[in-house]
Amino acid sequence: MSTGNLILLRHGQSAWNASNQFTGWVDVPLTDKGRAEAVRAGELLVEAGLKPEVLYTSLLRRAINTAHLALDVADRLWIPVVRDWRLNERHYGALQGLNKAETKEKYGEDQFMSWRRSYDTPPPELADDSEYSQHDDPRYAALDEVPRTECLLDVVKRFIPYYEAEILPRLKRGETVLVAAHGNSLRALVKHLDGISDEDIAGLNIPTGIPLVYKIDDSGAVTNPGGDYLDPEAAAAGAAAVAAQGGK
Amino acid sequence: MSTGNLILLRHGQSAWNASNQFTGWVDVPLTDKGRAEAVRAGELLVEAGLKPEVLYTSLLRRAINTAHLALDVADRLWIPVVRDWRLNERHYGALQGLNKAETKEKYGEDQFMSWRRSYDTPPPELADDSEYSQHDDPRYAALDEVPRTECLLDVVKRFIPYYEAEILPRLKRGETVLVAAHGNSLRALVKHLDGISDEDIAGLNIPTGIPLVYKIDDSGAVTNPGGDYLDPEAAAAGAAAVAAQGGK
Repeated sequence: MSTGNLILLRHGQSAWNASNQFTGWVDVPLTDKGRAEAVRAGELLVEAGLKPEVLYTSLLRRAINTAHLALDVADRLWIPVVRDWRLNERHYGALQGLNKAETKEKYGEDQFMSWRRSYDTPPPELADDSEYSQHDDPRYAALDEVPRTECLLDVVKRFIPYYEAEILPRLKRGETVLVAAHGNSLRALVKHLDGISDEDIAGLNIPTGIPLVYKIDDSGAVTNPGGDYLDPEAAAAGAAAVAAQGGK
Repeated sequence: MSTGNLILLRHGQSAWNASNQFTGWVDVPLTDKGRAEAVRAGELLVEAGLKPEVLYTSLLRRAINTAHLALDVADRLWIPVVRDWRLNERHYGALQGLNKAETKEKYGEDQFMSWRRSYDTPPPELADDSEYSQHDDPRYAALDEVPRTECLLDVVKRFIPYYEAEILPRLKRGETVLVAAHGNSLRALVKHLDGISDEDIAGLNIPTGIPLVYKIDDSGAVTNPGGDYLDPEAAAAGAAAVAAQGGK
């Protein structure tokens, strides 16, 4: 029986992670710390003996560059690459560009957490003429409609069917697949993989830059529920830091 | 009538360009100078208003990283990527790893230039147990036979059919295609595009890191014979430097 390895990698720290701004589909770069996290992720893959055979990324440079740096370290830059908008971060609507602490102060804790963690209520829509809108971005020219906001349910609806059609068949065949994506697109996938309820997913946070590995059997089932972080201690600390965002 | 843009980009300076060693399929990294050349290539694309819609690379990190750095500068990291061994540098056989100046001194000018520029005579084969052999390299696992040496004719035979099947149809449709590859795989393609004879191709040298643009009409014909370098002065100087290799 073959076992596939699904390696989930949230991008390293971005410029707006560092400045505590809502990012969404805004294409901000990695920080030096983020690049170092990506290199460390590659080292963790090598230490674990994991050899990705194909890479899936979003269309955002923080995920693309994280994967690139990690694969360069792991001597796997040459593997096939697939980029798709369905792996993108959740579109944060009118919150894109806003400071998280200021937003929390202005709208209060309840509204703030609802926008961040409500499963099915999106933030207000982003205006098309905002400097943070992607409505004229050529990378999304093929979409029927570019999102103006999304809740996590919207991400589930766009990403999980793609996962099942494009990625899962490879895992069933025993391949090792690296998915370099974002906090909320990976939360959507983990929710699916672990059967987490719409309520409980609010409490799940994914740290930056630490590979999370799920083993998938040839029926498509997860054989290690919850997955395994390649550096569990760092992952726990990183998840706690994500949960604490919105503080000053 | 649509016009496609075929952008050829030889990787920036590699570690073995700098140390004057025959490289071939050995997967050496870029130097700092090579990375700077790649960034400059991206700036030249921006200045020329060229927006690659798809990227083709070899399986070698010096080409992959050159394209990555250039596309990051040009804000086109998100385009689809295809990697294929057929774009690889010519396999340099038993010369891989040897110093060019020492080789010229040991074997004489005539033999040296024959190995470098003969169209149809490959260097001696590289032994499978050489540290510079690719016979156990997982990236070539799908090949029926991994080359032990190649002449330029061998590169023509593997690359041109691939170009015609995979890349040319895009150009006929008017797409802008970036091909990030190597001195000899690009010489093979330029020979084909410009109808250069087996003899005259010996005198053609392609500089590192400067985009060379061919315009292709919807019949597949080149409308600017010889192509246009985006920085012609730097290209002329770079080509002269390539021709002078083997000096000390």
